[in-house]
Amino acid sequence: MSKKKVVVALGHEALGSTIQAQLGAVKKTARALADLAEADYQLTITHSNGSQVSMIHKAMTELRRIYIDYTPAPMCVCSAMSQGYVGYDIQNSLKSELLSRGISVPVSTILTQVTVDPYDEAFYEPKKAIGRYMSKEDADIEVNKGNYVVQTKDGYRRIVAAPKPIDIVEIEAIKTLVDAGQIVIACGGGGIPVIEQKHILKGASAVIEKDSIAGKLAADLKADELLILTSVDYVYLNYGSENQEPIKAMNVAKAKEYIAEGQFGETDMLPKIMAAIAYLEAVPSGRAVITSLSKTHDAIDEKIGTVITA
Amino acid sequence: MSKKKVVVALGHEALGSTIQAQLGAVKKTARALADLAEADYQLTITHSNGSQVSMIHKAMTELRRIYIDYTPAPMCVCSAMSQGYVGYDIQNSLKSELLSRGISVPVSTILTQVTVDPYDEAFYEPKKAIGRYMSKEDADIEVNKGNYVVQTKDGYRRIVAAPKPIDIVEIEAIKTLVDAGQIVIACGGGGIPVIEQKHILKGASAVIEKDSIAGKLAADLKADELLILTSVDYVYLNYGSENQEPIKAMNVAKAKEYIAEGQFGETDMLPKIMAAIAYLEAVPSGRAVITSLSKTHDAIDEKIGTVITA
Repeated sequence: MSKKKVVVALGHEALGSTIQAQLGAVKKTARALADLAEADYQLTITHSNGSQVSMIHKAMTELRRIYIDYTPAPMCVCSAMSQGYVGYDIQNSLKSELLSRGISVPVSTILTQVTVDPYDEAFYEPKKAIGRYMSKEDADIEVNKGNYVVQTKDGYRRIVAAPKPIDIVEIEAIKTLVDAGQIVIACGGGGIPVIEQKHILKGASAVIEKDSIAGKLAADLKADELLILTSVDYVYLNYGSENQEPIKAMNVAKAKEYIAEGQFGETDMLPKIMAAIAYLEAVPSGRAVITSLSKTHDAIDEKIGTVITA
Repeated sequence: MSKKKVVVALGHEALGSTIQAQLGAVKKTARALADLAEADYQLTITHSNGSQVSMIHKAMTELRRIYIDYTPAPMCVCSAMSQGYVGYDIQNSLKSELLSRGISVPVSTILTQVTVDPYDEAFYEPKKAIGRYMSKEDADIEVNKGNYVVQTKDGYRRIVAAPKPIDIVEIEAIKTLVDAGQIVIACGGGGIPVIEQKHILKGASAVIEKDSIAGKLAADLKADELLILTSVDYVYLNYGSENQEPIKAMNVAKAKEYIAEGQFGETDMLPKIMAAIAYLEAVPSGRAVITSLSKTHDAIDEKIGTVITA
């Protein structure tokens, strides 16, 4: 039997917020991923990097305060570092978990750049908060540098644009490894955003939404399934209210109706549904599943999770 | 004509020491690498990470001083971050340079772990200086944590072990991409050192010498050539003295004689010669070339560089 080609999107809960927390969290995540590998899923894995890129951005900012010979690290560089960091932790834990189960499939991380449109409307209205909380003075310095800053109840934070992904620059390398039956971690943190200017790929001061790139990756790979592992067992109607109700299955048309009703949270569930739709419109024979990371094993047996089809 | 399979080892001069310097340096490096690609070399690229891992280690240390909820970043994590950072800069610049020449070969970075022996003698006598210069007080704190510290004329520095590489964990992924004719950046900074304990790959507090891993990688790939690009045009006899003399060609036996005479600097040229020998002993039909990065084009035409054969 040929394996089921699956793109798995891992959220914040798969990784944790600090170096120590991540070391523990990825061990659990590796067990869930190894369960999938044992159930004859062929895995391509993407992951978020919110906490990690924030930590690195903070560290690089502090470095610059102390050693003035260091120039600031642009977001694209922090993003690349976070791909190295998270990719290493996942491939290390997953390889160890697979070895302990006697499974010898190769696991590796491909550093990934993703092109974005410099005229993407997100650049005109940045929304994604990154980095440390700042004082009013430090916020003013950022604004004077041309950066965007937002005021929150805990202080000021820098915000960057989250443009839509256009092309995955390293897609050929990813496909080659997937076609060879290997496990690949790619497009970490949504990929490093780059803008194509003639032949130059210029790093952009932005972040790409990880669900969005997961949908694109699943479409490019013509995956049999897009599995979005998050912190809830199902997508819900009337989420958080008294008459909250799990959605066991829906098609794209129904999903669009619910979107029009405003059923899905703009920063958490909506990007996941949008990613599923983008994937299913490219691969109508596909299947998107949204469920919690901790219930991955039950999702294999189709006992849990929201299933979306074309 | 089938392409010549070459492992290229890039040293410090290919990258520079700061984020801004690296951005400029990798553009020049990309031109040298693109010259090789145009001359029908199929490239697998490794690189050093001394300055980069030091910068990241410093940044993570400063972060921890300010935000006490962050635990320290172990060397393996800093090394993974540096692979992400340097790999991104090289693959971005090289891809851009190739696109501008109308060459569409895929370029990607594979995050690489390398196993080392926990009983490697290097662990008993660490020698490799990393991170910032410290005061006596800070040095004492490091020593109390069980780390090694060395006193230099500019202050105290932490030192770590530089054990020999045993196995490249992600070698299958690297081979798959090389076999597909793609350009691969791998084993950055010598690779992330890990110790195999039963089925667990445990990150080690160490760094692996980048020339050493370049030799191992060339051997594993059965490369036609190992090209070590550094800051001198040739390997020299009596280097730095009045009767300094370039070596145009030598075989392994001769190289070993010169080593016995103490001809090569322990921290700069000796590791390169040792890497060439390790590679040629595994691939006797191979060819190792040591020359300067800025003369890469002349090395293609065999006008410059020290050639070592079995």
